[in-house]
Amino acid sequence: VTAPWVAGVGPEHPFGVYNLPYGAAVLRGVPSLVVRIGDLALDLSAACAALRPDLAPLVAGPVLNPLLATGPETWRELRGAVRSWLVDEAHRPTIEPQLHPLDGLALRLPFAVGDYVDFYASEHHATNVGRLFRPDGDPLTPNWKHLPIGYHGRSGTIVVSPTEIVRPSGQVRATDTPTFGPSQRLDFEAEVGFVLGGATTSGVPVRLDQAREHIFGICLVNDWSARDIQAWETVPLGPFLGKSFATSVSPWVVPLDAFDDARVAPPARDVALLSYLDDETSEPWGLDIELCVEINGVQITRPPFSTMYWTAAQMLAHMTANGASVRPGDLFASGTVSGPSDDQLGCLLELTRGGSVPLRLADGGERSWLADGDEVVISGRVPATSGRPELALGEVRGRIRPAG
Amino acid sequence: VTAPWVAGVGPEHPFGVYNLPYGAAVLRGVPSLVVRIGDLALDLSAACAALRPDLAPLVAGPVLNPLLATGPETWRELRGAVRSWLVDEAHRPTIEPQLHPLDGLALRLPFAVGDYVDFYASEHHATNVGRLFRPDGDPLTPNWKHLPIGYHGRSGTIVVSPTEIVRPSGQVRATDTPTFGPSQRLDFEAEVGFVLGGATTSGVPVRLDQAREHIFGICLVNDWSARDIQAWETVPLGPFLGKSFATSVSPWVVPLDAFDDARVAPPARDVALLSYLDDETSEPWGLDIELCVEINGVQITRPPFSTMYWTAAQMLAHMTANGASVRPGDLFASGTVSGPSDDQLGCLLELTRGGSVPLRLADGGERSWLADGDEVVISGRVPATSGRPELALGEVRGRIRPAG
Repeated sequence: VTAPWVAGVGPEHPFGVYNLPYGAAVLRGVPSLVVRIGDLALDLSAACAALRPDLAPLVAGPVLNPLLATGPETWRELRGAVRSWLVDEAHRPTIEPQLHPLDGLALRLPFAVGDYVDFYASEHHATNVGRLFRPDGDPLTPNWKHLPIGYHGRSGTIVVSPTEIVRPSGQVRATDTPTFGPSQRLDFEAEVGFVLGGATTSGVPVRLDQAREHIFGICLVNDWSARDIQAWETVPLGPFLGKSFATSVSPWVVPLDAFDDARVAPPARDVALLSYLDDETSEPWGLDIELCVEINGVQITRPPFSTMYWTAAQMLAHMTANGASVRPGDLFASGTVSGPSDDQLGCLLELTRGGSVPLRLADGGERSWLADGDEVVISGRVPATSGRPELALGEVRGRIRPAG
Repeated sequence: VTAPWVAGVGPEHPFGVYNLPYGAAVLRGVPSLVVRIGDLALDLSAACAALRPDLAPLVAGPVLNPLLATGPETWRELRGAVRSWLVDEAHRPTIEPQLHPLDGLALRLPFAVGDYVDFYASEHHATNVGRLFRPDGDPLTPNWKHLPIGYHGRSGTIVVSPTEIVRPSGQVRATDTPTFGPSQRLDFEAEVGFVLGGATTSGVPVRLDQAREHIFGICLVNDWSARDIQAWETVPLGPFLGKSFATSVSPWVVPLDAFDDARVAPPARDVALLSYLDDETSEPWGLDIELCVEINGVQITRPPFSTMYWTAAQMLAHMTANGASVRPGDLFASGTVSGPSDDQLGCLLELTRGGSVPLRLADGGERSWLADGDEVVISGRVPATSGRPELALGEVRGRIRPAG
């Protein structure tokens, strides 16, 4: 267990030297990449310029994409270097002046998003939604246990926490003809996101055992959803404007290596998987991440990511099985994380049974759907066990502004 | 009617001074933007540096995006300047050395694609597909005449003609459990694409009457589709791997202004439209573009774009109605263009009735779906009338390579 020389950041700190997430902030007026340690942001460009000029060009710009384009060897080299700077007193005179208090920094999206894919990987979520939308049919579609269902989302409207979200307007189904107006069924979705790196070749899939070469890090995602707009548009080609107005991500991308002690086996597979998805003998890709969602400061649910049926490695293998290439900066998200119990559901659609059972907030309020002014905060952590310290993923925050 | 001084390019040439599409090519080893005139490519960067240094920074790079980011005034200024250089003999000594024969040039994708949205805007196509997929129900879903159905595609796998296409592999439905292998139902889709420019603000939709401010130009699109992969994955969240392996675009982006004489009224609207889509009193956004599809040199269909129910202006208004912003370089496509008659259908799925009636090629061959080695060429033109010369859109070409 290693402690940095940084004051107040012990070895058990959830943003200690076992975490070291990447972010971006405006430092001295310049958009810069940073690494978080405790409640401080290390100016990565300045530190590299002083101590590792060979790596400095990869982190000189406002986004991680040049670093993402390299690969796991370089990712590990940089991460090891940053850790050594923060632990080794000899580097303190050089590094300490490059630490900035996070308080007051404007955080930015640390990567330029290529393509954004959203999956649907929680069996509990898919089952609950299936029961609501198709009460007379099987809750899961016939394909659900054979492949991780997913679709492309809008990458241009991905915003960083705590960007405010304007309530979307759109067409919704009415008795005879549709009407247009502000969504009356605005929802959050608590998800985990995966930031990709390394180059792949068109026509060459990423195998399950190659996932580590392309998954750079993990963030939190709020896939805001206008359920009324979504319901009317979604057949036959899937979600579109019910999702595309905004998707929020946390400002910190935690390197995949930080989750080495959080790997757990995914749920048992009920049906045999085709070989490109069969993870029976692969390293475990389940992740023991606990999410927590608050509305206006009141905790409403704690979805456990370890219950997800499909893993990130399977999502990536599936997404590229047809030969589609991925690019540095591509993002994919898990889909709503819901556990088996009522206090583990990852969106209001499930928590309120389609809006029919309003959620009682501890402050006395009630919500079927999000109201203007509501602030949703999704946070995530790997809880401490005897073998590992707590690891924080930070939070993704967003407040609803009235429709324009 | 104006003739340039360029040899062999008369006033009626389909790539004459009324067209002037933008493209990109490697010139003297450097990726460069070009304008096509006849069968020559004008080095736009060199020409601007000499004659309009104020505009040169917008076209100095390998892609159009800085120019796209400006807006219609600058677009018109540059287009007017280029036309004047090609018509005015006084500029000939400066411009002629910057003209390169297209023959032998490697053409590149002239814009960095932001988000890619594919629509489903042909009533004939949607009806034909609905009859095949839902033989017992209404061919059109209840929402179809109220909004232009669309979904996000994968922008990272958009390739420029004549990039070869590797046959995708994927999961397909079998009797009991799915199987994995090369798609057996590979199809093309003949579409028209719209390249966007200008900046929009999150939360502020693009109104119908603002479409000209954001639609920079028009290209051709082949939305390759693996029908067997698509059929198994598509419920409940829409097309994904059946489309994401590759989408081909033509190398030439024809400026929207070139279509001023090709505007026609769209089909009569059967149902009243909500005001943000109601184009009864707006300028006509139907476009008299004739597509032509050849397989291995044999013409198989001639889809008329003028029959599309939804216009580009409506697609853009709808895509932003929820407040979603668009970025310079975003691309949206019309969806398969199919006309009312059997020789106007825009994909094999329709031409072969779901594969059940093979298409006879004039060379004696038969096709239910595309075979390895097949080359599909989609070309497009605005036919000449008494009031306008012919306008060519070039072609989008792609040959199928065997699965890897």
